[in-house]
Amino acid sequence: MTDRYAAFRALHRTGRPLLLPNAWDHASAAALAAAGYPALGTTSLGVAAASGKPDAVAATAEENLRLAALLVRLPVLVTVDVEAGFSDDPTEVAGYVAELADLGVVGINLEDGRPDGTLADPALTAAKIEAVKARTPELFVNARTDTWWLGMPEALERAVPRLRSYRRAGADGVFVPGLADPATIRTLVAAVDVPLNVLHQPGGPGLAALGHLGVARVSTGSLLFRAALAAVVRTAQAVREGGEPDPGLPSYAQVQRLTTCRLRPDQGGTEELGSP
Amino acid sequence: MTDRYAAFRALHRTGRPLLLPNAWDHASAAALAAAGYPALGTTSLGVAAASGKPDAVAATAEENLRLAALLVRLPVLVTVDVEAGFSDDPTEVAGYVAELADLGVVGINLEDGRPDGTLADPALTAAKIEAVKARTPELFVNARTDTWWLGMPEALERAVPRLRSYRRAGADGVFVPGLADPATIRTLVAAVDVPLNVLHQPGGPGLAALGHLGVARVSTGSLLFRAALAAVVRTAQAVREGGEPDPGLPSYAQVQRLTTCRLRPDQGGTEELGSP
Repeated sequence: MTDRYAAFRALHRTGRPLLLPNAWDHASAAALAAAGYPALGTTSLGVAAASGKPDAVAATAEENLRLAALLVRLPVLVTVDVEAGFSDDPTEVAGYVAELADLGVVGINLEDGRPDGTLADPALTAAKIEAVKARTPELFVNARTDTWWLGMPEALERAVPRLRSYRRAGADGVFVPGLADPATIRTLVAAVDVPLNVLHQPGGPGLAALGHLGVARVSTGSLLFRAALAAVVRTAQAVREGGEPDPGLPSYAQVQRLTTCRLRPDQGGTEELGSP
Repeated sequence: MTDRYAAFRALHRTGRPLLLPNAWDHASAAALAAAGYPALGTTSLGVAAASGKPDAVAATAEENLRLAALLVRLPVLVTVDVEAGFSDDPTEVAGYVAELADLGVVGINLEDGRPDGTLADPALTAAKIEAVKARTPELFVNARTDTWWLGMPEALERAVPRLRSYRRAGADGVFVPGLADPATIRTLVAAVDVPLNVLHQPGGPGLAALGHLGVARVSTGSLLFRAALAAVVRTAQAVREGGEPDPGLPSYAQVQRLTTCRLRPDQGGTEELGSP
């Protein structure tokens, strides 16, 4: 148990960031695990949309438990996006996260954005973090502030005291989706003494550049899910118009093996769907 | 109710086949509905793999009911792949299909392939079809023979009597996945007097050519699902290597609207994710 937590923590290296792809069902996660990624996150947009629910309105607590139970069977470390913890009662949030930890999940993302587009009182978010760390001390709590994501004015000025208070409450890392400006990223790295996680932005700084800025984790957020949806519509259209699908699709048998071969590669397991 | 069944039946036109894309979750279905497809099937491989189960071993009866309940909320007609009906008791199969019909599903695919790679006794498959048609007479039963899919020798000689007996049992259409040879397709069209459904084969005859041969429905099977998985791995790899994702991805807001806007376009509803 402890080893898995330590292994996940050790993947956060300033200068050579962990690329954490985000899955939403067993198949997307198994394909990424087969491609060699050592750890996976979840995308709350993907989890919600796959089950016909809107994102970011605390509607997917059950779906996340079901998904976590599937993903922990794969040869990867799993961290789960729990939005704002699906409750404003810190004890309830800690209880929910303990259920995930019992399944084998090594980390969570916990955010201060609210469904109405405002930010939660930072004291409430800090209290949730404290409660989670008291209940499951080894679990990696990645505390997310949504000052950039929600397009707040003076995002940096709002973010720094929030992230520092989340850190004081026990956060193991901090996450600032929506931030791509190199100078601001550097300022945040200096301002908070835990690993900084940013969201990959198409057209923004690449993995190496983010590493140079001091970022320790780069997530793909909903990007892979949105790429999957685009591929669905594009491929149907190719069939309709007499074109050809994308090259390099996995075969029926390869997809079946994603589900039936769950061993780690070093145990003679999973065939590769691609390579990282 | 009757109108939906009639509308689905009317989409099967010899010479101008219905292109039926196959979805596996609410998001893939909503994206295809938004792209303008009037009817959707399901892919048993996708439904199984998304939930961490192998395909074609009768493991996803519950998953299919849950999925059907989501898909019928979309502005499309829905037909569900029920493998071999998840039972070898015709009454049980008919009861299961009646549950789908109660949800609003207009059709099913019912196959004679078995998990061990052999074919079921055609009398058993015919008895299931009879039981389904007795219980839900308006529902479109697409009877599938797996002589080609399972790579049987003398596939045509085995298929014709099977398809004729499924037709006599009440099948509204027949489905022969794995068949791409134009002359054999033409022979089957002449041999059975209900709409013929084939699976789109990359590199095989296109939609127009299949129409000329007399095909009335073309399914994509697991193709769109496999394209989605390939896009997931390819996009993660692009991020890792400093490349760019595929162009034309839907935005976060567009994906959210797939779930929150369920009206038909003619009622002022869903924004387009693409066009067919």
